[in-house]
Amino acid sequence: MRHPLNAWNDGEAKERIRRFVIATTTERSPDYVAPTDRIAVFDNDGTLWVEQPMYTQLRHLLDNFLVMAPDHPEWAEQPALKAAMDGDLAALAEYGEHGLGAIIMAVLAGKTTEEVQAEALAWIGSARHPRFDQLYSDLIFQPQLQLLEFLRAHGYRTFIVSGGGIEFMRAFAEQTYGIPPEQIVGSNVVTEYAVRDGRGVLVMQPRMNFVNDGPGKPVGVNQFIGRRPIIAVGNSDGDFEMLEYTTTGDGPRLGIFIHHDDAEREYAYDRDSTFGRLDRGLDEAEARGWLVVSMKDDWGRIFAHEGDS
Amino acid sequence: MRHPLNAWNDGEAKERIRRFVIATTTERSPDYVAPTDRIAVFDNDGTLWVEQPMYTQLRHLLDNFLVMAPDHPEWAEQPALKAAMDGDLAALAEYGEHGLGAIIMAVLAGKTTEEVQAEALAWIGSARHPRFDQLYSDLIFQPQLQLLEFLRAHGYRTFIVSGGGIEFMRAFAEQTYGIPPEQIVGSNVVTEYAVRDGRGVLVMQPRMNFVNDGPGKPVGVNQFIGRRPIIAVGNSDGDFEMLEYTTTGDGPRLGIFIHHDDAEREYAYDRDSTFGRLDRGLDEAEARGWLVVSMKDDWGRIFAHEGDS
Repeated sequence: MRHPLNAWNDGEAKERIRRFVIATTTERSPDYVAPTDRIAVFDNDGTLWVEQPMYTQLRHLLDNFLVMAPDHPEWAEQPALKAAMDGDLAALAEYGEHGLGAIIMAVLAGKTTEEVQAEALAWIGSARHPRFDQLYSDLIFQPQLQLLEFLRAHGYRTFIVSGGGIEFMRAFAEQTYGIPPEQIVGSNVVTEYAVRDGRGVLVMQPRMNFVNDGPGKPVGVNQFIGRRPIIAVGNSDGDFEMLEYTTTGDGPRLGIFIHHDDAEREYAYDRDSTFGRLDRGLDEAEARGWLVVSMKDDWGRIFAHEGDS
Repeated sequence: MRHPLNAWNDGEAKERIRRFVIATTTERSPDYVAPTDRIAVFDNDGTLWVEQPMYTQLRHLLDNFLVMAPDHPEWAEQPALKAAMDGDLAALAEYGEHGLGAIIMAVLAGKTTEEVQAEALAWIGSARHPRFDQLYSDLIFQPQLQLLEFLRAHGYRTFIVSGGGIEFMRAFAEQTYGIPPEQIVGSNVVTEYAVRDGRGVLVMQPRMNFVNDGPGKPVGVNQFIGRRPIIAVGNSDGDFEMLEYTTTGDGPRLGIFIHHDDAEREYAYDRDSTFGRLDRGLDEAEARGWLVVSMKDDWGRIFAHEGDS
C-alpha cells in the first residue's frame, strides 16, 4: 500500500484517524490495544456506499417484487402490496414499516438463504443507479475502502453492522469490501432448517427475527461479535447507540459520523432525510468527542468512476 | 508444531482427518478449498471438554443460584426454584426445560453481559470437577486442542457452535481454546441496550432469544457464520443436524462424532445418557460417511493431567 488514505484530503479528520490507529497499534504507546481487541464496526448504507434516492436493498426488493408479482395475483388483496404492484411508492410509504415488512416477506418467505443470496448477487451484477448510471457495487466510497484496508493492515478486524438484510449483504460484501460473511451483522428474518432433495438448507420464514438498527445495533454487536468495538463508523441516528456503546468503554475509542454535505458529487442531507437521517448525532457529536467527517471537505475522491484526483 | 496430533493414536481416524485436511488445503488437489471457505465448527460440551456428570455450565448456574438464593426468599414460591434451593436435583429434573429456564432467568436476568462474563471467569478459575479434582478448564480434551491448532495452521477458521450460553463460553474460550468471542455461536437470552452510569451496556432479559441445539444449530451457523462449514465435529444427537447441514453441501466435507467409550479415563455413555445422548447419530453415521472417533482407541492422551504418553 504505497498511498494509504490518499482518497482522503489532508486535514484534521484524516490526521485524527491516522493518529488514533497508530496510537492503538504501536507497542509501548499508552493507548496500545492488544490485537485480539481490535474491532472496528461500520454501518453500510450511507457509510460505505450510497443510500439515496433510496436504500439499495429496498430497490432490490422492489425489483424482485415486481418480477414475482404476475405469479401472485393474491398480493393485490393487501393494500400495501397493491400500492407496490402499481409502482405507487408514495402510497406504499404511507404504510410505513408495516408496508416494508409486507414486501420483505412476500419476496423472501419460502426461499432458501442460498436462493436469496444468488438472487442478490445476480441483481447487484446488473442493476444500475438512476443518477450515476453505475453498478451499485461501483458506488462504494473509495475513502472508506481505503480506511477498511488501512485498519486491517494494522491488525483491526472490520465488521459491517447494518440495518440491512444479512443475506443480501453477505452475497457481495466479501468481493466488494473484503469482509467475509461471518463479519457481517444485519437484520434478519427467522429461518428454519429443512432437508430438500437430500440437502440441508435454511428456509426463510415470514416473520422478522431481529432488527439491527438504533438501540438494536449494540445488541447485534454484542450477540455476533461479543466484544465492545474500539472504532465505530456510521452516518445516521440509527448508528447513534452503536457509537455510544463503542465510545463509552474504557481506554481509547473512536466514534465517526460521515456527514453527507456534498450535493454535487453525491448528496447533501441530514436532519430531514427519510433515508439516513442525522439529527441527534449532529447535535451531540462534539460534546461526545465524535469525529464528523465532511464528505465535501475531507474526501478527495468519492467514487472510483471519478478517476484519480 | 513438531508433533501435530500426537495425542491421537496412529490409526484410521487420525489418518482420515489428516488426509482430509491436506486434500482440502493443497493447491492443485481436486478437493482444494479456498481459504475463505475453510470453516470448521465444533460442539463444546462432550466434544471439546467433559460434560459429565452434568454440563459444566449447569454446575456454574447452580453454584451461582445457591450463592444468590439467600437474598431472594421469593424464589421459594416457584416449585422448580425451591427444589434447586433444597439441592434436590432429582426434583428439579422433573421440571425439565422449564426448570432449567427458571434457573437461568433467576441467575442472569438484570445483569449486564459484562457482569455475567466476569462471574463466569471467576468461577472457571476456581471450581473443580468432582471426580477429577481439576479446574474445568483443565478438563479439555488434548487431542481436540491439537486438532483445533492443526486446522488453524492449515488456514481453517475454527468456531464453537454449542447449546451452551454464549456469554459463558466467551468468558474463557479465547484463553482456553484460542477461539475469540466472535467465533462462538451459542444459546442466548434477549438483551436490551441501556446506559448505566454513562456507560453503554447490554442487560440480560428474563426470556430466551435462541436455543442453539439440534435443528437450531444449522440456524445458528447460518445466522452467525453465513456459510456452510467444511468440517463439523460433535458428540451427540444435538449435533446431528449440524453434521447433516455441513456434509450435504457440495464438494469435500467431513462430519465427525466423538464417541465416549472410555469409562476408565473419562466416561462411557451414548444412547441412554441424560447429557450428550448419541443414538440416531450412531445408527446413521456409517451410511452418511461420518467418522466416529473412539476416545478409548483413537485418543492416546485425553487430559493434560495424564502427563505425556
